[in-house]
Amino acid sequence: MTDVVSTDPRTGRAVEVVAQETTPEEVARLCGAALAAAPALDRLGRDGRARLLRALADALEARREDVVATADRETGLGPARLDGELTRTTYQLRLFAEVLDEGGYLEAAVDHAGDTPMGPRPDLRRMLVPLGPVAVFGASNFPLAFSVPGGDTASALAAGCPVVVKAHGSHPATSQLCFDVLDAAAREAGAPEGTFGIVHGLQAGAALVAHPAIRAVGFTGSVGGGRALLRIIEQRPDPVPFYGELSSLNPVVVTPGAAGERGERIGRELVGSFTLGAGQFCTKPGLVLVPVGDDGDGVVGAMTEAVRSSGAQVLLNEGIADSFERVSGGLAGAPGVEVLARGTGDDGDGFTAAPLLLSTSAADLPAEVTEECFGPVTVVARYDGQDELLTALTDMPSSLTATVLRAEGETELPLTISERLRPLAGRLVYDAYPTGVAVSWAQHHGGPWPSTNSQHTSVGTTAIRRFLRPVTWQGAPREVLPLELTDDFTGVPRRVDGVLELPR
Amino acid sequence: MTDVVSTDPRTGRAVEVVAQETTPEEVARLCGAALAAAPALDRLGRDGRARLLRALADALEARREDVVATADRETGLGPARLDGELTRTTYQLRLFAEVLDEGGYLEAAVDHAGDTPMGPRPDLRRMLVPLGPVAVFGASNFPLAFSVPGGDTASALAAGCPVVVKAHGSHPATSQLCFDVLDAAAREAGAPEGTFGIVHGLQAGAALVAHPAIRAVGFTGSVGGGRALLRIIEQRPDPVPFYGELSSLNPVVVTPGAAGERGERIGRELVGSFTLGAGQFCTKPGLVLVPVGDDGDGVVGAMTEAVRSSGAQVLLNEGIADSFERVSGGLAGAPGVEVLARGTGDDGDGFTAAPLLLSTSAADLPAEVTEECFGPVTVVARYDGQDELLTALTDMPSSLTATVLRAEGETELPLTISERLRPLAGRLVYDAYPTGVAVSWAQHHGGPWPSTNSQHTSVGTTAIRRFLRPVTWQGAPREVLPLELTDDFTGVPRRVDGVLELPR
Repeated sequence: MTDVVSTDPRTGRAVEVVAQETTPEEVARLCGAALAAAPALDRLGRDGRARLLRALADALEARREDVVATADRETGLGPARLDGELTRTTYQLRLFAEVLDEGGYLEAAVDHAGDTPMGPRPDLRRMLVPLGPVAVFGASNFPLAFSVPGGDTASALAAGCPVVVKAHGSHPATSQLCFDVLDAAAREAGAPEGTFGIVHGLQAGAALVAHPAIRAVGFTGSVGGGRALLRIIEQRPDPVPFYGELSSLNPVVVTPGAAGERGERIGRELVGSFTLGAGQFCTKPGLVLVPVGDDGDGVVGAMTEAVRSSGAQVLLNEGIADSFERVSGGLAGAPGVEVLARGTGDDGDGFTAAPLLLSTSAADLPAEVTEECFGPVTVVARYDGQDELLTALTDMPSSLTATVLRAEGETELPLTISERLRPLAGRLVYDAYPTGVAVSWAQHHGGPWPSTNSQHTSVGTTAIRRFLRPVTWQGAPREVLPLELTDDFTGVPRRVDGVLELPR
Repeated sequence: MTDVVSTDPRTGRAVEVVAQETTPEEVARLCGAALAAAPALDRLGRDGRARLLRALADALEARREDVVATADRETGLGPARLDGELTRTTYQLRLFAEVLDEGGYLEAAVDHAGDTPMGPRPDLRRMLVPLGPVAVFGASNFPLAFSVPGGDTASALAAGCPVVVKAHGSHPATSQLCFDVLDAAAREAGAPEGTFGIVHGLQAGAALVAHPAIRAVGFTGSVGGGRALLRIIEQRPDPVPFYGELSSLNPVVVTPGAAGERGERIGRELVGSFTLGAGQFCTKPGLVLVPVGDDGDGVVGAMTEAVRSSGAQVLLNEGIADSFERVSGGLAGAPGVEVLARGTGDDGDGFTAAPLLLSTSAADLPAEVTEECFGPVTVVARYDGQDELLTALTDMPSSLTATVLRAEGETELPLTISERLRPLAGRLVYDAYPTGVAVSWAQHHGGPWPSTNSQHTSVGTTAIRRFLRPVTWQGAPREVLPLELTDDFTGVPRRVDGVLELPR
């Protein structure tokens, strides 16, 4: 038995033993229970699962104070941020209840039997059905929004998939508390035994991904962690979908027009964005392209000043603190990279780091600069003219986001930049910063490798599709069809003989 | 240089040298051209690409006689079947033109800026955009519908992705002819240089999948072939989506009611289904569950008689013929398996095989029986009562299809069977046979591993989604938005502030 220990990142000291690492036998038992729960969770239907999601939101809300306090003690992210994160999570649970109410996510389609140029066509009816039990890996940086509660759990449950969460070792007490709250609320709301499970420990996580009952994996973490889980999946007799949100540079372009119009403000706001959550956002701007010349100097000057007056920040755990020191040190020492500013007060107590601002030339970007460095650091790359800017953008790795800060009314250069950036990002942000990811119908949080490894999103309503697959019923008697595919059902949007119809 | 040779499967003799295997340099040149073509193909827009697809259909139609004759000489599938297959392919191209006209595939969504419980939300607009160049692997068994033309090519082009096809070595002349026809028609229709490419040879296929310009791979073939390509993809610095349609048992359940009502007819029709295209359909019924007793004996008797009076069939190539002999021999020799009937006239000339009917008990299915055997063989498994049937279904591997043949009006047992089968199949077929796969809006051709390795379909209109990814524009000026996301556009279905709106 190995202790699962909760640590205070502000002091670096262990505070309590939360649990024991989950044994392989217990992982297997939880996966078996999840598999057994799947048909009943599916049978709850859209109504039943919408009620379940709302009950989970209410339950978290009722324990807000405890949850936020535990998470703050364990992550150092601060009560204000964690309070907002919990609000986000309850909002998301309720939004997925709306998704279920509306029913468009089923992609219901009915093609009646008929003649075609290929000959007679049988009656075909298609909709999406749940995949089965899903393994969700909690992330270090969002203990309430990408962990035991969060987008993966909410979307998987909405889809009708039981969830077994691998708690992140960085906040086991928060994970266990949230699990206990959600599990009790789920039982009370009529969810079948086995709807929820939690495991602790790296070995348990590996066993979870390998277990035959698991039909998909949701993961938010490093490329290395993602690759390791992918290797386990590839060795399964039946590889299953793996949805990894892995690594992102999130380049920001400041146009000359924007630098001239509001350079000082942009500089301050950029520092606010890259130090938000101690730079531990997957959407942290890691590279800022700023024009050479006086206007660009204004941006960089404001950034330098803001960083110099920033205090040290608490990182989530020892591994991240060590990695930040190593990787940011490598960045600062890369050829052509200059240190512009460092924050104050990194006194070495706990897992702390001072914000760091680096500078280089866009004409000759060292490879280190185009890789994500988790923590409060960003690199300013100065570009001399449009050609140099566009060439630099072509060499970027893909990201979750790419941002354009432009002058009011400026459209020509932003369009050219957008055309370069679109193949490289999942979200294009204008005149704002990438670090907020609103939960909504039109949101997308994903991008080509290495930002994610699939086209799907892990934020927003379409995240549900990751945990669904289509089934077509051919010539089926009414009695075996799902309600939503029967002839006279009109409660969800459906495509009938190719024509989209709204619910009536 | 290595010759690419076209062989006549009816004689087993080489007929002509079609091409040389494509060199790695030429593969790289084609991929580079495809990458360069991508923005222009995207800019053609939905209208331009709909015109392109219709022009491709017309061009194939105009060369129908040549194409069918070449394919028949090279595959032995017969002119009637190939004529139908070409009709299917032109129908499919035109159907994807309709998909583009309609525009719902874009999944356009607009969330206007506003207040939420999480605070102010920015303006967010999402739709799907093309992935970039796609590698398509032609299949041996559908030279016109899953090869150079076919579902992968049609859906990728519709999405706006240039296509480089790896021609199947089993029908290189047909592949090259179709390519020449399509490539000329595409140029004439204004498609950019590089929209289409073709490569020959296994090495060229491997180089294609590894090339950095390729953003997704469509494959129809064996589990072994699929695993080999997946290994190449896993070694890329940026793994890309792989859509493999791999292997399928396609179990069929004959209920006692159906056996009693029309056993003899079912027996004859089942033989028609499993020998269609010489048993080389991915949807071939490979296992038929028939009740013990007189009614079931009637089904099996009719199957036995129909197989005994069947002549030898021409298989597609030497590899398939050798594999059929080996795998069907293993099946016939598996413990508890009995040979019921063999077709006549396998005279050893060309790549021929006699249809084969085997029998075993559902109570103790040997492992061999639950694996796909490509070619004209099926196994009848006799079940004694509902429990034995349901237990046998639980042990099935996942398939593209699962079929229930029931008595008229019978619903109770079909529903119980359907609940067992749904987790194991992508299409549930009632009172028909799985070997036809209609192209339509509600079709789905896919299923859990090993039938496919993703939730997506390779047949029907939603196949387009495999080659698209979402992008969200946040706070974007109108000038950088795609037309379909601008405020006053009403030409496609859109979800506006969460509410689905039909085009006006």
